Amino acid sequence: MLKTAHGEIPTPFFMPVGTQGTVKALEQRELIQLGARIILSNTYHLYLRPGDDVLYSAGGLHSFISWDRAILTDSGGFQVFSLSDLREINNDGVMFRSHIDGSSHTFTPESVVRMQRIIGSDVMMVLDECITSNAEFEAVASAMHRTINWAGRSVCTLEETEPLYGFDQMLFGIVQGGVYEELRQECIEKLTAMPFHGYAIGGLAVGEPIDDMYRITQFTAAKLPVHKPRYLMGVGTPENILRAVASGVDMFDCVMPTRNARNGMLFTSTGTVNIRNAKHKADREPVDRSCDCYTCVTFTRGYLRHLFIAKEILGLQLATLHNISYYLRLMSEARKAIIDNTYSRWMEMTLAKMQATESRE
Amino acid sequence: MLKTAHGEIPTPFFMPVGTQGTVKALEQRELIQLGARIILSNTYHLYLRPGDDVLYSAGGLHSFISWDRAILTDSGGFQVFSLSDLREINNDGVMFRSHIDGSSHTFTPESVVRMQRIIGSDVMMVLDECITSNAEFEAVASAMHRTINWAGRSVCTLEETEPLYGFDQMLFGIVQGGVYEELRQECIEKLTAMPFHGYAIGGLAVGEPIDDMYRITQFTAAKLPVHKPRYLMGVGTPENILRAVASGVDMFDCVMPTRNARNGMLFTSTGTVNIRNAKHKADREPVDRSCDCYTCVTFTRGYLRHLFIAKEILGLQLATLHNISYYLRLMSEARKAIIDNTYSRWMEMTLAKMQATESRE
Repeated sequence: MLKTAHGEIPTPFFMPVGTQGTVKALEQRELIQLGARIILSNTYHLYLRPGDDVLYSAGGLHSFISWDRAILTDSGGFQVFSLSDLREINNDGVMFRSHIDGSSHTFTPESVVRMQRIIGSDVMMVLDECITSNAEFEAVASAMHRTINWAGRSVCTLEETEPLYGFDQMLFGIVQGGVYEELRQECIEKLTAMPFHGYAIGGLAVGEPIDDMYRITQFTAAKLPVHKPRYLMGVGTPENILRAVASGVDMFDCVMPTRNARNGMLFTSTGTVNIRNAKHKADREPVDRSCDCYTCVTFTRGYLRHLFIAKEILGLQLATLHNISYYLRLMSEARKAIIDNTYSRWMEMTLAKMQATESRE
Repeated sequence: MLKTAHGEIPTPFFMPVGTQGTVKALEQRELIQLGARIILSNTYHLYLRPGDDVLYSAGGLHSFISWDRAILTDSGGFQVFSLSDLREINNDGVMFRSHIDGSSHTFTPESVVRMQRIIGSDVMMVLDECITSNAEFEAVASAMHRTINWAGRSVCTLEETEPLYGFDQMLFGIVQGGVYEELRQECIEKLTAMPFHGYAIGGLAVGEPIDDMYRITQFTAAKLPVHKPRYLMGVGTPENILRAVASGVDMFDCVMPTRNARNGMLFTSTGTVNIRNAKHKADREPVDRSCDCYTCVTFTRGYLRHLFIAKEILGLQLATLHNISYYLRLMSEARKAIIDNTYSRWMEMTLAKMQATESRE
């Protein structure tokens, strides 16, 4: 259970991604109908648009986007390293140019916490140095050490600042160290000595072999404090998530259900469906017979295919709604299986059912 | 009251446009929540995509799009003349190339009725010849005469064919004749001698001066049978509609509320709002204080502006939802004013309120 100022969230859970203060193509009331108790947004994007002044005058992000459930904000570290141009990093922070208009900005560990005070997210993330998955040991070690230094400064800023809107905010540290267990180990030791409210596993799902991802997730999750939430950032496929839950991970986020929906890729209990495929032209079946979302109880695959082929916005809406429904239901079933003490068996059955037909498309 | 096989619809009413079997960016359940009792779709678009085979195997358009309220389909005449390339018209029909893939097709008055049998629309429209607004008298007269000839053949096809899905379908004739009263007069006389279920006024709102539109609407509506529905095609702004109601028009459709929504132009009781305008950046007011739609009761102008500036799909959804809500509520108020016998006064007050601030943006 993650207790936030905007509700308690049973673990393990998945956070739909609402980078710019909206889960793309979904209305807030639909997220509530689907049972979403927390969404993820992004400090980098919100800092650029609408900006701290607008967010502050609105009374924070919850109020600005009319969402009174929990919000976690990523620090924007990953986005600075993946989206922006001409970044220059030093021990103080990172200078970058906006991917929108090329303007120059600087993020420091301190400024990123202060920005998240203005955003008013329930869970704030520290600024970390994100490094490419193929980096050498020395470079990964160096980025990890800087991340530790920045984590300490983030905690100081947390303590020196107050929440702006009358409710408590948490701050999570981020474990870096690439695919190297000794680096992960060192990072864990240093970060767990700091008073974070929870810990994230960063730097995975960025192109490394899948076995490395599982290995490092298991290694790291096992060493993080069991009484604090463990969050695997940016992961992943249904299978990735279920296996990470088995390793003890509590929290997930990923653009996959929303982004893939907009490309016509739908998740179902029997594998993925490419709805644009010609075989669905006159298909009168729902996307997933075992799904009770609005899309599945109302519309056929044939109609969804038509919407995608005709480039209609409703296709994006209905596909996103279904994929988020799928991810949230999967997590709900996982929680039930954990409580019933049948998780391993349930997971294997669920994955087998998924994979039996997954590659047919 | 228009009585259809999918419900009775009090007049005057506005039909949201769902050209390709979806009102762009709105879910079917949202249309129902907004009180839409009928939508308009398009034979030209549905013929090209998804095609007659898919629609027939789905059991018609209502079933294909999961909409059990009424549907009117335009014949596609207007689209053939405005969208397709290399059209060639003769007395038999019109040959054209698809705007999607350039393939060649022919529409005849007969084939268009048969296609609408397959679509299963509650109200079918005849194929007419649509001519540019700046055409000379002789060309307009010639197109009008061809439209009359085609109308007769459409009625024959109606009588020679049966509904395919167990419910009755209506067929409306379309009065052409441009801005020339004598041509409109001749067309009305010929068409009202045929057993149509209703009559449309076509060939207006295509670029002619606004006074011509009002003059011809008034002239034509006054001469059409009072016991049958009168439909002004493709009109228009709130003011256009209210003035046409005063002339006796019962039915309207227009892409304006949906298309303008997607451009960030919102209709309100005090005029239009360009939501992208910088002045709305930190605006915490709703789009329209007097509107009870989900957009207005939940979100601020500042958030909507952010969604548009950040190119988020949710902006299109919320803006469309509001504009359709606005149009449907306007018609509901118009119906009430007619019943209360206060229409003229209500219309003048409504227009004055709208125009007092309309040009401020």
